[in-house]
Amino acid sequence: MSAPYTLILLRHGNSTWNQQNLFTGWVDVRLSDQGRAEALRAGELLAESGLLPDVLHTSRLTRAIQTANIALEEADRLWIDVKRSWRLNERHYGALQGLDKAETLAKYGPEQFQTWRRSFDVPPPLLDDSSEWSQAADARYADLGDDVPRTESLKDVIARMLPYWESDIAADLRTGKTVLVTAHGNSLRALVKHLDGISDADIAELNIPTGIPLVYRLDEDLKPIGAGEYLDPDAAAAGAAAVAAQGAKK
Amino acid sequence: MSAPYTLILLRHGNSTWNQQNLFTGWVDVRLSDQGRAEALRAGELLAESGLLPDVLHTSRLTRAIQTANIALEEADRLWIDVKRSWRLNERHYGALQGLDKAETLAKYGPEQFQTWRRSFDVPPPLLDDSSEWSQAADARYADLGDDVPRTESLKDVIARMLPYWESDIAADLRTGKTVLVTAHGNSLRALVKHLDGISDADIAELNIPTGIPLVYRLDEDLKPIGAGEYLDPDAAAAGAAAVAAQGAKK
Repeated sequence: MSAPYTLILLRHGNSTWNQQNLFTGWVDVRLSDQGRAEALRAGELLAESGLLPDVLHTSRLTRAIQTANIALEEADRLWIDVKRSWRLNERHYGALQGLDKAETLAKYGPEQFQTWRRSFDVPPPLLDDSSEWSQAADARYADLGDDVPRTESLKDVIARMLPYWESDIAADLRTGKTVLVTAHGNSLRALVKHLDGISDADIAELNIPTGIPLVYRLDEDLKPIGAGEYLDPDAAAAGAAAVAAQGAKK
Repeated sequence: MSAPYTLILLRHGNSTWNQQNLFTGWVDVRLSDQGRAEALRAGELLAESGLLPDVLHTSRLTRAIQTANIALEEADRLWIDVKRSWRLNERHYGALQGLDKAETLAKYGPEQFQTWRRSFDVPPPLLDDSSEWSQAADARYADLGDDVPRTESLKDVIARMLPYWESDIAADLRTGKTVLVTAHGNSLRALVKHLDGISDADIAELNIPTGIPLVYRLDEDLKPIGAGEYLDPDAAAAGAAAVAAQGAKK
């Protein structure tokens, strides 16, 4: 059977806070030079693949938007329609936002650290609105009112991402458009969990590498026909291993 | 009386074909390094002004989109909503697209040359669909079908731009959003003609400089309260003179 619909997922690359080993979440940091190079490579892969996105969906975070802009400029598709939503944002890391990962690991120990990073439904402590890393007063989330997250588990991310999948991404797919979603480790894990029917227990093991387009062919019910395929499988395997190793690191 | 609405117009800067002195129109060339520097300066001016765009409207042409992306990244507003429309495109230059301006001037003489550049309702000859500079088969205009322009006068640009002004730009302004429109010499002349009520005869004299945000304060009927103001008036005056001189040059 043919696959009428094409969905491309792209996780943004290295940011300035990745380089500094800080928890980021909704803090709006920018791509590092390495992250810009990853985005450029993603654009080359898109161009080489012949996959032509018709519409872009991004989070409201600059690092995902930069990634999309660089990749689409490289692929000569900067002119496509764009939609942005906070529902594609990275997981809100609560009170961990702005903290050094190594210091946090040393302070709370590996078990607590890993629970915050990879548990399905245990969020970090709430981030206080007075924190310089809070988004409670960020103009871009004004329409959320007091519902701006103060912390999130992966379960929370799924709950706020899925309505957008249905209302906007799936809606574009059903019109036959090739859809590019440029987002974050956890919002994309939430989406892949939904597409591939991964259990709450198994999602902890899923690591999505940065900067490598992940292509899904979907049937008329928007169910994947086969596994998602990375446009550079070797780099994707190495990248996923690197992401997994972050949990073990220091 | 207070001015409830704010509209910011930004003309893209120098492109690779500007550098080569070629007629561009709908040919999708990119910014030159100079054009990128102009866009960065526009972003600095926006940031310094304290004007915060809530929504961006661009044409479907890469050079305008690049300008917006660079400026908004500099102004830390990359995350705002984006809408693109062919109705904001540059004037289609017909059979002149891709031709050298100096050669065209030499071949047809200054009177014909100036008529094509600045007459209100005389379009250049039709561009043949078989030309490498035609947009008749460009995927981004597929929804236009056979209505893709083969040439346009300024009058034609006004006729296709105004419906978008009303349906999208004015609609956003009426919700209280600060609107940034990043577009082209002729689509912005069309918009300024409408806003300022400039006559068909006088619009030939209006030259909009590149890379300098032009700010309109609008009343509740979306009529300008006073003249539009450039964020860098000195640079704008010099830039407008430079645009005007292009017609006289060589």
